Amino acid sequence: MPSLALTPSELRRRYRAVRAVTESLCAPLLTEDYQTQSRLEASPPKWHIAHVTWFFETFLLRTHLPGHELRFAGFDVLFNSYYESIGQFHPRDQRGLLARPSVEEVYRYRRAIDAGMEALFDRLDREPDTTIEGFIELGLHHEQQHQELLCMDIKAHFAANPLRPVYRADLPRHTVEATVPMRWVEQGEGLHEIGHAPGSGFAFDNESPRHRVWLDGYQLADRLVTNGEYLAFIEAGGYSQARWWLSDGWAHIRRHGWQHPLYWVRDGEGGWLEMTLGGWRKLDVHAPVCHVSYYEAEAFARWAGARLPTEAEIEVVQARQPLRGNFFDQGFLQPMPAGPDGQWWGDLWTWTGSAYLPYPGFRPLEGSAGEYNGKFMCNQMVLRGGCCATSIDHMRASYRNFFCPPDRWAYTGIRLARTP
Amino acid sequence: MPSLALTPSELRRRYRAVRAVTESLCAPLLTEDYQTQSRLEASPPKWHIAHVTWFFETFLLRTHLPGHELRFAGFDVLFNSYYESIGQFHPRDQRGLLARPSVEEVYRYRRAIDAGMEALFDRLDREPDTTIEGFIELGLHHEQQHQELLCMDIKAHFAANPLRPVYRADLPRHTVEATVPMRWVEQGEGLHEIGHAPGSGFAFDNESPRHRVWLDGYQLADRLVTNGEYLAFIEAGGYSQARWWLSDGWAHIRRHGWQHPLYWVRDGEGGWLEMTLGGWRKLDVHAPVCHVSYYEAEAFARWAGARLPTEAEIEVVQARQPLRGNFFDQGFLQPMPAGPDGQWWGDLWTWTGSAYLPYPGFRPLEGSAGEYNGKFMCNQMVLRGGCCATSIDHMRASYRNFFCPPDRWAYTGIRLARTP
Amino acid sequence: MPSLALTPSELRRRYRAVRAVTESLCAPLLTEDYQTQSRLEASPPKWHIAHVTWFFETFLLRTHLPGHELRFAGFDVLFNSYYESIGQFHPRDQRGLLARPSVEEVYRYRRAIDAGMEALFDRLDREPDTTIEGFIELGLHHEQQHQELLCMDIKAHFAANPLRPVYRADLPRHTVEATVPMRWVEQGEGLHEIGHAPGSGFAFDNESPRHRVWLDGYQLADRLVTNGEYLAFIEAGGYSQARWWLSDGWAHIRRHGWQHPLYWVRDGEGGWLEMTLGGWRKLDVHAPVCHVSYYEAEAFARWAGARLPTEAEIEVVQARQPLRGNFFDQGFLQPMPAGPDGQWWGDLWTWTGSAYLPYPGFRPLEGSAGEYNGKFMCNQMVLRGGCCATSIDHMRASYRNFFCPPDRWAYTGIRLARTP
Amino acid sequence: MPSLALTPSELRRRYRAVRAVTESLCAPLLTEDYQTQSRLEASPPKWHIAHVTWFFETFLLRTHLPGHELRFAGFDVLFNSYYESIGQFHPRDQRGLLARPSVEEVYRYRRAIDAGMEALFDRLDREPDTTIEGFIELGLHHEQQHQELLCMDIKAHFAANPLRPVYRADLPRHTVEATVPMRWVEQGEGLHEIGHAPGSGFAFDNESPRHRVWLDGYQLADRLVTNGEYLAFIEAGGYSQARWWLSDGWAHIRRHGWQHPLYWVRDGEGGWLEMTLGGWRKLDVHAPVCHVSYYEAEAFARWAGARLPTEAEIEVVQARQPLRGNFFDQGFLQPMPAGPDGQWWGDLWTWTGSAYLPYPGFRPLEGSAGEYNGKFMCNQMVLRGGCCATSIDHMRASYRNFFCPPDRWAYTGIRLARTP
Repeated sequence: MPSLALTPSELRRRYRAVRAVTESLCAPLLTEDYQTQSRLEASPPKWHIAHVTWFFETFLLRTHLPGHELRFAGFDVLFNSYYESIGQFHPRDQRGLLARPSVEEVYRYRRAIDAGMEALFDRLDREPDTTIEGFIELGLHHEQQHQELLCMDIKAHFAANPLRPVYRADLPRHTVEATVPMRWVEQGEGLHEIGHAPGSGFAFDNESPRHRVWLDGYQLADRLVTNGEYLAFIEAGGYSQARWWLSDGWAHIRRHGWQHPLYWVRDGEGGWLEMTLGGWRKLDVHAPVCHVSYYEAEAFARWAGARLPTEAEIEVVQARQPLRGNFFDQGFLQPMPAGPDGQWWGDLWTWTGSAYLPYPGFRPLEGSAGEYNGKFMCNQMVLRGGCCATSIDHMRASYRNFFCPPDRWAYTGIRLARTP
Repeated sequence: MPSLALTPSELRRRYRAVRAVTESLCAPLLTEDYQTQSRLEASPPKWHIAHVTWFFETFLLRTHLPGHELRFAGFDVLFNSYYESIGQFHPRDQRGLLARPSVEEVYRYRRAIDAGMEALFDRLDREPDTTIEGFIELGLHHEQQHQELLCMDIKAHFAANPLRPVYRADLPRHTVEATVPMRWVEQGEGLHEIGHAPGSGFAFDNESPRHRVWLDGYQLADRLVTNGEYLAFIEAGGYSQARWWLSDGWAHIRRHGWQHPLYWVRDGEGGWLEMTLGGWRKLDVHAPVCHVSYYEAEAFARWAGARLPTEAEIEVVQARQPLRGNFFDQGFLQPMPAGPDGQWWGDLWTWTGSAYLPYPGFRPLEGSAGEYNGKFMCNQMVLRGGCCATSIDHMRASYRNFFCPPDRWAYTGIRLARTP
Repeated sequence: MPSLALTPSELRRRYRAVRAVTESLCAPLLTEDYQTQSRLEASPPKWHIAHVTWFFETFLLRTHLPGHELRFAGFDVLFNSYYESIGQFHPRDQRGLLARPSVEEVYRYRRAIDAGMEALFDRLDREPDTTIEGFIELGLHHEQQHQELLCMDIKAHFAANPLRPVYRADLPRHTVEATVPMRWVEQGEGLHEIGHAPGSGFAFDNESPRHRVWLDGYQLADRLVTNGEYLAFIEAGGYSQARWWLSDGWAHIRRHGWQHPLYWVRDGEGGWLEMTLGGWRKLDVHAPVCHVSYYEAEAFARWAGARLPTEAEIEVVQARQPLRGNFFDQGFLQPMPAGPDGQWWGDLWTWTGSAYLPYPGFRPLEGSAGEYNGKFMCNQMVLRGGCCATSIDHMRASYRNFFCPPDRWAYTGIRLARTP
Repeated sequence: MPSLALTPSELRRRYRAVRAVTESLCAPLLTEDYQTQSRLEASPPKWHIAHVTWFFETFLLRTHLPGHELRFAGFDVLFNSYYESIGQFHPRDQRGLLARPSVEEVYRYRRAIDAGMEALFDRLDREPDTTIEGFIELGLHHEQQHQELLCMDIKAHFAANPLRPVYRADLPRHTVEATVPMRWVEQGEGLHEIGHAPGSGFAFDNESPRHRVWLDGYQLADRLVTNGEYLAFIEAGGYSQARWWLSDGWAHIRRHGWQHPLYWVRDGEGGWLEMTLGGWRKLDVHAPVCHVSYYEAEAFARWAGARLPTEAEIEVVQARQPLRGNFFDQGFLQPMPAGPDGQWWGDLWTWTGSAYLPYPGFRPLEGSAGEYNGKFMCNQMVLRGGCCATSIDHMRASYRNFFCPPDRWAYTGIRLARTP
């Protein structure tokens, strides 16, 4: 568990703040909305808010709060996501079938665990314990990941409904008159260090150890690929020409009939609408293309005469850029067009050409928390940079997100690279 | 459309009564319970209460109430079950994904259509119209069918939840000290008439025309097969011996690992629990075995040295018995042990050895209502007699229910027959 | 087992003749052709010729030929089709994966069993035994069924090959100048007997017992529906209008994209080609439409303002017609246009509107042979009349063939009926 | 296309030799064996021998032999494996259904293309052309890959047959008294070059460009993991403990019920038999464990307190070892126990922890041959070192083989690595 930068009382404030954000995300939901699982890989909001709570109960209260009782029968199984070492778990594809516990009961659970956590903070005020504090910080970053999943899953649920309900009609919007040109940042060849530097704040285990990598010289685009640029690929017949695609990608788009990114539909006049958390909107050609799979990102890059960057190539450049951008905190909940300074963080997670694999010398956390990351290091690709649904205080340059090549319900986009 | 026995004002009273029963069935539900679809063949309660309402709007108000507007956008598609001639319909397996319309909105829809129907009744009071009245009666019998489906589907939803929630803890129960002996009613050979007799009240189109059938002599059991009798089949190894089973049945039980009726689980001590709408209960060996498929019913009958009766064999005998039994109106919502007079109606729909096919000279209703029954006359078997979730005023001797051979989430049971 | 009309020496001659026909059917095959299983429901020719041999070994030699040894290790499992009471069997969908035993080895097996059968006939010459003789006759009718399956499966294998190989280029052909009009035979209402009459020669168990049925008056077409008539249905949009179809049929044709009968393809000029055992031929509009499923037959009948006859309706009329027609023995191996006397037998099995169910009082054969027919009495429809791949000495009026509603690789066609 | 080390006449000799090996591999096959496709990822031998021939016709004769005619109608589609830019191809999963062309016809095709190639060699003798020669060399390496696939697929076909046929009863065997200890070769940290060095002979495009990689210090086992060592993992409950497994691996082994490597079965006495091309043999505990998936290799390594090496880690060490080992040329066609000098090449392809991705600066071959490797760079892992079914003149240190994580019908094994 990485060392902590926060005092117990700062941590308590952060706990309250993060937990409040989760609930604020659910505020616009009806009880019915809490319940649905519109895709197998998405979970009902009710499940998310119970599961993040289960995490605190399981990893903190059960072990570290004397006298804590498991009062919510069955929740240990229902809200365990995938921790084999903890015990059984309810099948992922059946989360949407759980009418009970009710939303109200789940909030009661949340209140009870929050009370337990307050008692644990009281104890930490008296006797600080960096192990416990480390797990709390892990729990908070875990909950922030689920806040992003909530945005993704709510978007998926609302998009699937033919009545086209709107999650938040009041979301702000921002656009520009013209797309800023894509500029290429040059990086010469050399030996670099990437990964989490010990002592520099929180990181997941999969970001360690910090280690050396050799990189040949490369160029990295300073902004994301736009909807307009991606439209050109579509209009050039990109989805019907095998030569741009990986073999698996070509098979996948044909089997599923993909002709465009997820959440695009034609409007009546030959244009496109795009689903957002603010409802269906006319596609903004200046905004970054969103909800593309690895297959689509990779094919687009080939068509554009470029390639996807590796995760190391991104980290080396991104680590030098100030951490600011269109994160959750901006309140757009949708990627926005780049400004004249480019787009280095936020907006969208960008697919890399790197498979999600352990760093040299990687060791998972001890105990059940070791199942958090390591066991998923197969069949997935790394994404970098955070997105408009990521809290900025959850982000850092070494952060490794990962999805399977066909996945596209996350806030995924494309940043190009080139070998000179 | 069959001729009517009811005056417009009687029909209005019946309309109000039937509609009220549907809502009373939903009274114990939480909002979350309205939402779930735990099996592909089951529908969420919210869908049922909207669909039966859609039926009245579509077949009555759109055509017969001047000035009626379709104010609930999209409902014509969402709540159309399968009427191709009316237009598109939402895929059946995705009914559970519709968080919206909300339960409240669906009840608002219900209120609006009820108001329209009251206006239509006002008109009928002034100008009776047997065509319209016939469709209203059809709509009410349709809603009564969905009341039974609501019982089935709620049971399925609650049974699938590992927290074992209870739909109605207050349901009455009834049992006996000993199983009454099974007696065999003899019926000599002869030419009989079966099917709906014109002028004898409401019937679905599939019960007509009344027609002659020749029956060889047979014996029909006067009560249903009990849990205790079925347990003997299980304990004799019935589920592991191919010789009792139809080929399709044997393949099915092995593929799905069936070892007992649906909703049975072993209790801790080698006995059995059974799911009921009153919660999980110790299996009552004197009560009829319930939730068996055609395959199981047919295999049991062979093992027992008997067979399933044909639908004509049942109808001939049942038509002579007074219409009384454990119907919905008794309030048990679960089959109960037979008394000394046998069990001729209600408790459980009994599988027959008759495929669901058109009667000689069958003609479906004209127009879209013709899709009600006729197009399902393939790959299904007939069941007879009504069940504990059927309203008694929905029942008659010519009633043909039908399910596919593997189905068992309905209230299905076994009545035996023998050829002397 | 039905009583026999043949003396042991007649039976021996018949044995030799039937066995020879099977081998003559395989004469045009390459070793490679013996091997393939192009559809799950079809079997490789090699499997057929081994399985019919296995039948004689299993039901005759093992029990009735003293000293018979099972010299072909593993064949008891590999070539058991579905007899649970005999033991395990190789999965049906993996028959095409058995490169071994080789074709040569299978013929060696055939020779060995034939030798054993000759020894058994020697014994029967000395001590006739009607039980044994009955099983031999059953085995011969079984082999004749597999001769028909061989025609079906070879057709399927050859049709699936993009090189369009031809099974027999020398097959004769016959056509007419014009389609003869369809005439309707009237049958008044009455009580009839159908089923196998004891003492009237061989029949399968499923044709018994002979029993009474009441039939309302009906009209039966005197010939089969032609390709030309079916084309009119296609051209009228039959495959794109839900109203003609059973619900299961409509779902099926859309899921599989069916637009026409099996084995039809468009030729270059807007016409149609049809696969035959003589290769791909221009569609003969005067010949009967072939390789349609029950769904298609039933939909066509509805579109044509008629219906499919029941099996009893056919049997009553067919039993009065002399047994002659386009059977296997004619050598066409393809249905041919009707002549002026109509078409009462052969050409194509015609779908009936009767589900394949036991006759009243049906009892399967005792022992393993009881699995021959009875356990398939579910989810299938009856077909009547024989086809161009059926040997005429295998046919009789009470013969009940059966397939599942979507099946169409058999020689299936349409005969219409009407209720006056 | 890499530059060539061979003169045209050497190349002709090599062409004849490689082609002869393919045919010698098929010599023990019956016609029936040529035909079967026992797993979707395997192909029938007939298809292999036609496809490698198609490769020469397509990439050489069609373009470079004036006057060459496509005389074998349909073969361009049937035997195209996956080259989208060349045209359509027959679905992979239906290769086993092609009874025609016959084996004889395929050999006729082979002869015809060989004749064409001889004519092309004649031309090259007169006018050498390194482009053409490069494609010929590519075609030969391609055919050698298919020789290995033939071994794999023949093994799969024979293993699937319950009669347990033997491909070659005469295969030599070799074993030892005791397993030699596993020794660890140390490699200090540093910057290394890997990949194909230009001018050093043939390589596939995916081995280029040669490039620098930084490696931290590591230890590499000098021999493969044995059956005995793997048995210890099984006996320790490895297949029933989630903690050793990647999440996808754990799901996979449970869904498929895997409990041991492919081709192992229990013998009667609690021991194990293993399928080999010499038939089923008692498992040799000293020989390398074979036919394990990436999931199993990765889980075993974790259980053993080690890890899988990266492809760079292997290449750096392997490149220093003389190229010798148990290759196809030894004639065992099965992995053999390591000797005292370890096991650096051959026996089995060893799984690496590296995803199959493009090297920095990778460019596929121009034209259709560019589909050879690049489009598969997703969802696969790299394997290194060659195997007992690989010809030694097909091998080199930079060779990158690749399979999907669940695949195990290739000759795959395990080499361990450790981070000090």
